[in-house]
Amino acid sequence: MTDTMPLLGGVPVQDQVKTLCSYNTVKAWLPILSWLPRYNLSWLRMDLIAGLTVGLTAIPQVLAYAEVAGLPVQYGLYSAFMGGFIYTILGTSKDITLGPTAIMSLLCSSVVGGRPNQAVLLSLLCGAIQAALALLRLGFLLDFISYPVIKGFTCSAAVTIGFGQVKNILGLKGVPQQFFMQVYYTFYKLPEARIGDVVLGLLCLALLVMLMWMKKKLGPPAEDSPTSRRRRVARKMVVGIATVRNALVVIAASLVAFSWDAYGSHIFTITGKTAKGLPPFKPPPTTDMTQNGTVISFGEIVEGFGGGLAVIPFMGLLESIAIAKAFASQNDYRIDANQELFAIGLTNIMGSFVSAYPVTGSFGRTAVNSQTGVCTPAGGVVTSVIVLLSLAFLMPAFYYIPKACLAAVIICAVAPMVDYQVVAKMWRIRKLDLLPFFVTFLFCLWEMQYGIIGGVAVSGVMLLYNIARPKFKVSDHDVLLIELGSGLSFPATEYLSHVIHTQALQASPPRSVVLDCHHVSTIDYTVVNELRDLLRQFKLRGASMVFSRLQPAVLEILLAADLPGLRHADDVEAALQTAEQFSQPPQHNQQIN
Amino acid sequence: MTDTMPLLGGVPVQDQVKTLCSYNTVKAWLPILSWLPRYNLSWLRMDLIAGLTVGLTAIPQVLAYAEVAGLPVQYGLYSAFMGGFIYTILGTSKDITLGPTAIMSLLCSSVVGGRPNQAVLLSLLCGAIQAALALLRLGFLLDFISYPVIKGFTCSAAVTIGFGQVKNILGLKGVPQQFFMQVYYTFYKLPEARIGDVVLGLLCLALLVMLMWMKKKLGPPAEDSPTSRRRRVARKMVVGIATVRNALVVIAASLVAFSWDAYGSHIFTITGKTAKGLPPFKPPPTTDMTQNGTVISFGEIVEGFGGGLAVIPFMGLLESIAIAKAFASQNDYRIDANQELFAIGLTNIMGSFVSAYPVTGSFGRTAVNSQTGVCTPAGGVVTSVIVLLSLAFLMPAFYYIPKACLAAVIICAVAPMVDYQVVAKMWRIRKLDLLPFFVTFLFCLWEMQYGIIGGVAVSGVMLLYNIARPKFKVSDHDVLLIELGSGLSFPATEYLSHVIHTQALQASPPRSVVLDCHHVSTIDYTVVNELRDLLRQFKLRGASMVFSRLQPAVLEILLAADLPGLRHADDVEAALQTAEQFSQPPQHNQQIN
Repeated sequence: MTDTMPLLGGVPVQDQVKTLCSYNTVKAWLPILSWLPRYNLSWLRMDLIAGLTVGLTAIPQVLAYAEVAGLPVQYGLYSAFMGGFIYTILGTSKDITLGPTAIMSLLCSSVVGGRPNQAVLLSLLCGAIQAALALLRLGFLLDFISYPVIKGFTCSAAVTIGFGQVKNILGLKGVPQQFFMQVYYTFYKLPEARIGDVVLGLLCLALLVMLMWMKKKLGPPAEDSPTSRRRRVARKMVVGIATVRNALVVIAASLVAFSWDAYGSHIFTITGKTAKGLPPFKPPPTTDMTQNGTVISFGEIVEGFGGGLAVIPFMGLLESIAIAKAFASQNDYRIDANQELFAIGLTNIMGSFVSAYPVTGSFGRTAVNSQTGVCTPAGGVVTSVIVLLSLAFLMPAFYYIPKACLAAVIICAVAPMVDYQVVAKMWRIRKLDLLPFFVTFLFCLWEMQYGIIGGVAVSGVMLLYNIARPKFKVSDHDVLLIELGSGLSFPATEYLSHVIHTQALQASPPRSVVLDCHHVSTIDYTVVNELRDLLRQFKLRGASMVFSRLQPAVLEILLAADLPGLRHADDVEAALQTAEQFSQPPQHNQQIN
Repeated sequence: MTDTMPLLGGVPVQDQVKTLCSYNTVKAWLPILSWLPRYNLSWLRMDLIAGLTVGLTAIPQVLAYAEVAGLPVQYGLYSAFMGGFIYTILGTSKDITLGPTAIMSLLCSSVVGGRPNQAVLLSLLCGAIQAALALLRLGFLLDFISYPVIKGFTCSAAVTIGFGQVKNILGLKGVPQQFFMQVYYTFYKLPEARIGDVVLGLLCLALLVMLMWMKKKLGPPAEDSPTSRRRRVARKMVVGIATVRNALVVIAASLVAFSWDAYGSHIFTITGKTAKGLPPFKPPPTTDMTQNGTVISFGEIVEGFGGGLAVIPFMGLLESIAIAKAFASQNDYRIDANQELFAIGLTNIMGSFVSAYPVTGSFGRTAVNSQTGVCTPAGGVVTSVIVLLSLAFLMPAFYYIPKACLAAVIICAVAPMVDYQVVAKMWRIRKLDLLPFFVTFLFCLWEMQYGIIGGVAVSGVMLLYNIARPKFKVSDHDVLLIELGSGLSFPATEYLSHVIHTQALQASPPRSVVLDCHHVSTIDYTVVNELRDLLRQFKLRGASMVFSRLQPAVLEILLAADLPGLRHADDVEAALQTAEQFSQPPQHNQQIN
C-alpha cells in the first residue's frame, strides 16, 4: 500500500531523540532538520500531490469558514497559508494541516463579533499565549487525553464533518451548523435538493470509492520476473491514479461545471467569485474603530475579549493536539506536544502580520492530507503556495469548483475515521473505558469542545475514583490483615478510616489490625493525620495497629510525624505477632459493657 | 475542661454505625435518634447556654447579611431559624449552625439582584438540588478536600472574619467587604474611630480573654477530700462563668449601652431598629413582578438564575462541609457528608416556605457554638427559638446590643482557629503539602470560594501528577528491569513509553525489558494500546518485553486484549530468563548499520 510505504522507508520525525547533545536539541526545536537531509524524489512526488489536493480542498473550505467567523471571505485565505510554512519547519507530525477550522471560526465570531481588526489582534494574543504555554513545557496536559477520548472525538468529528457535507452534495442552502439541527434540516429540506449537485456529487463519490477500493484490492507487488513486467506497470498506474484521485476528481468536476456553465446551464452549486490579491505584510492593528468613527483602544479591545483569551488558545491546543495524537497513533509515529503547541503559537503570531484570524489543526484537511499519502510536513508548503497563488492569480480557476465534488472528497477522507471496531475491542478488554468514549462521542456531536472536556472529565473522575476507593484485601488472621492494593492519598483517607472503624474498632471486642503497605509508594499529610487519629483510637480501645513492609520513603514520613504508638515490621508475619503482643484485651471495659 | 467533658461522656453522633439493620438505617437518616435517648440535664444546660449565645450573636449578624444580599433586613431573621429545627433532627455535627452567611448573601445578591420573591424561590431550587445530590450519595466529593485545604480555609476564614469585626470595634462605617480593601480602609479611616465603641469593644475583648485564660489555667478537678470542697465550688463557678462569658458580656454591654442611651448619650454603635412579626408559612412564590407591574414567569426567573443554580448549591455544600469537617476533626467526631448535604437541602427547601433565602453552615456562629461548649445539635433549637421570639416580641430588647461587643465575641471565637503550628508540622512531615495550604489560605483571603476551589485544584493536580509521573525503579541486569512503583493509568502511558523508548528501544543494540508489575493493580485501555504498540516495536527491533508478577485482574485484561507477543512470568528471575531467551539479536541488521 502506497499510503504506508514512505513510513516503512523512514518516519520523518519518529527517531527524533532528545538528549543533551546540542545538535539533537536544535533538531528537537527545528524538526525539519531530522527529515530534510533525507528528503527524496518519491517523497516530493507524494508531498506535491497531497499539498495540491489539500490546497484544492482548503480553498473553498476556508472561504466558507471565514463566513462562519463573520469576516470577509478573503480572510479565510489570509489565514490559510502561514501555517504551512511555519509548520514545515517546526511541526512534528507529517499530517497536521494548520488553518481556519469550523470551531475556531465559530469561537472567533463569538469573541470579536466580525470585526477584522480585532480578529487579527486576537490571533496575535492567542499565538502569544500558546507559545508561552509551549515554552513553559505545559504540553504534558496532553497525557490526560486518554485513548477512548481521542477515539470518541475522532469518530464524532468524522460523523459531524461527513454529514456536514451531505447538504453540499444535495445542493441545499440555509442549513444550520449544529449537528442535530443539521440532520433535521437536511432531511426537512430534502425536496429542495438540486438535481445537478446530487448527480455530480454521487458520481464523484462513486468514482472516489471505486479508486479507493481498487487500491485496496491490489495484491503485494509481483515477483521480479520478465512475464510480470506489464502487470507491474499496470499496478503502478492504478496506484498513481488512486493516489491523485482527489485532485483528479476536483479537476474533472470543475471542467464539467465549466462546460455546462459555458452553455449557460447553471445546474451546479459552484464556489463562485472571491476577492483577489495578497494581504499586506504589516504589524497587527492595536486599535479598532467603531462604525461611527470612535477609536477603541488596545486595552478596551483586550477587555472585550475577556474569557475568549482563555478559551480560544486552549481549544486550539486541544483540537490540534487531539488530532495530532489521533493521526500519530494511526500512522505510527510520535509527536512532541510542546513543539506542536509552539508551532501553532508561532503560526498565530506570524499570521497576525498577514491579517489572519486564529487557526489550529484542521481535522478534515489533515485527514485528506494523510489519505493522499503525504510524507513530510513539506506538503504544507505546497498547500500554502497554492493558497498564495490562488490569492494572487488563480482565483478565476477556482470559480468553477463544484461544492458537491469537494463534499465527496471530504466525505471519503473522513469515512475511514469512523472506527466502529474500537467499541467491540473496548468491550472485550475493559468495558469501563466505553464510558469516556461514548461521553466524548455524543457530547462532541452536540458541541466539539464540550465533548473533549466532558470526556477528559469522565476519565479524570474514573482515575480519581480509583484513588478515592483503592482496593483493600482484608484477610482474617488472629488479627485483621489489611493489604492496601495501591497508593494511599488523601481522597482514600475517609474510606480507609471507615473500613478500619467498622471492621476493627467497632467490633466487639475491638480487633487489632496489621496494615500491609507493600504497594504504598507515597503518603501525604492528610493520611498521616488520619493515621495519628486511628492510632489514638486503637490505644483508647486497647487494641493496636501495626504497619508492615513500609517502603523507605513512606517510613521516613511516618517517623517524621512522630506518631505516638507507631509500630512497624519488615514482614507480615512479624507484624502479626507484634499486633497480637501489643493488644491488651481491655478486660475491665468489656465487663462493664 | 468543660468543653470536652460531654465528648468523653459520649459523642452524640460518633457511634452511629450504618449496617443493614433497619433501626440503624433509620438512625442514619435521623441522627437525632442516636443522641436523644441519652439526653441529660448537663447537656441541656450547655445547649441552652450555647444556643442563647449563638442566638445573640446571630441576630445582629443576619440583619447585616440581609443587607449584603440586598434584601430587607427581616429576611435575615426569616432565614435564620428553619436550620436550627431541621438540623437538630437531621444533622450529624453538634457544632454546625445553619443560617445566612456572608458568602451566600453575596452570591444571592449577584444572582437575584435584591428581589425578595426570587431569593425565596432560589432557596427552594438550591435546596432541591442539594437534597438530590444527597440522595444520589454524592457526598464522597468531600473526600477530595484534603486536610491542608481545610486548614488553609479555616485559618483564612478566621483571619477574614476576625479582621472583619475590627471595624465594628472601632465604630467605623462604610468599610467594604473584600478583605484587602477592608484592611486598607480600616487603617485609612482610623481617625474616624468612635471612642465609645473602642473603649467598650476593648473592655469586652479583655474580659473575654481573661475568662478564657482563667478557664485554661484551671488545673484538673481536685481530689475528693473534705479540705478541697471550697476549692471545688470556686472551680465550678469559674468554669460556669467562663462558659456563659459570651452571653454575660453581651447582656452587660447592652445594659451599659441602655443606661448611656437613657441619659441621652449616644456614644455606642448599637444594633438599632428592626422589623417585627413572624413570616407567614406559605408556599414559595413561583412568579415575580417587575417595578412597572409586568409579571415574570417561573421559566423566566429560572433562566435569569442561570449559572447561579450551579454555583450556589455547590458553594453551600463546599462551605458547610469544609466547616463540618474542620470542627469534626477538632472536636473528635465523624460526620456523614451525605446526611449533612440532605440537612442543608431540606433546610433550604423548608426555608422557602417561611420566606428565607439560601443558607448554609456559618463559620463564625459555628465557632461560637463550639466554643461555648454545645453538646448536641439541640443548641440550634434554642437559637431558632431566640430568633423566633425576637421576631415576635423581643426586638426592642436587641435594640441596644452594641456592635463592638458582638465584634469582641466573634473575634474571641475565631482566634483559636488560626493554627500557625500546622505550618511547622507540615514542614516537618511533608513539605509539599504546604502548597495547597498556602494556595487555599491566600486565595481565601481574596475570595472564599476561589480559595477552596484553588486548594482542591492544587491537591488534585498533585495527585494527578503522581499518576502521570509514577516512580519507575530501573535496574540493569543483562536485560533492563523496570519496576513500576505504583499503578499504571492512561496519564502515565506517554511517560512509560518515553522511558522504554529512550532506555531500551533506541539503545544500540536495542535492549530487552522486563516490566515488573507487582504494584500495578489496575490497567486501562489506553495503557493496553500503548503496550501493544511497544510489543510490536520490540519485535521489529529483535528485542523482547516480558511482564513479571502480574496481578490476576491485570493479567486477565492483557489476555483479553490478545496482545501479539505477550509473555509473562510469575517471578522476576523467570521473566529475566525469558527475556534473554527471546531476544534474538538482529545480527543482520546490525551489520548493515
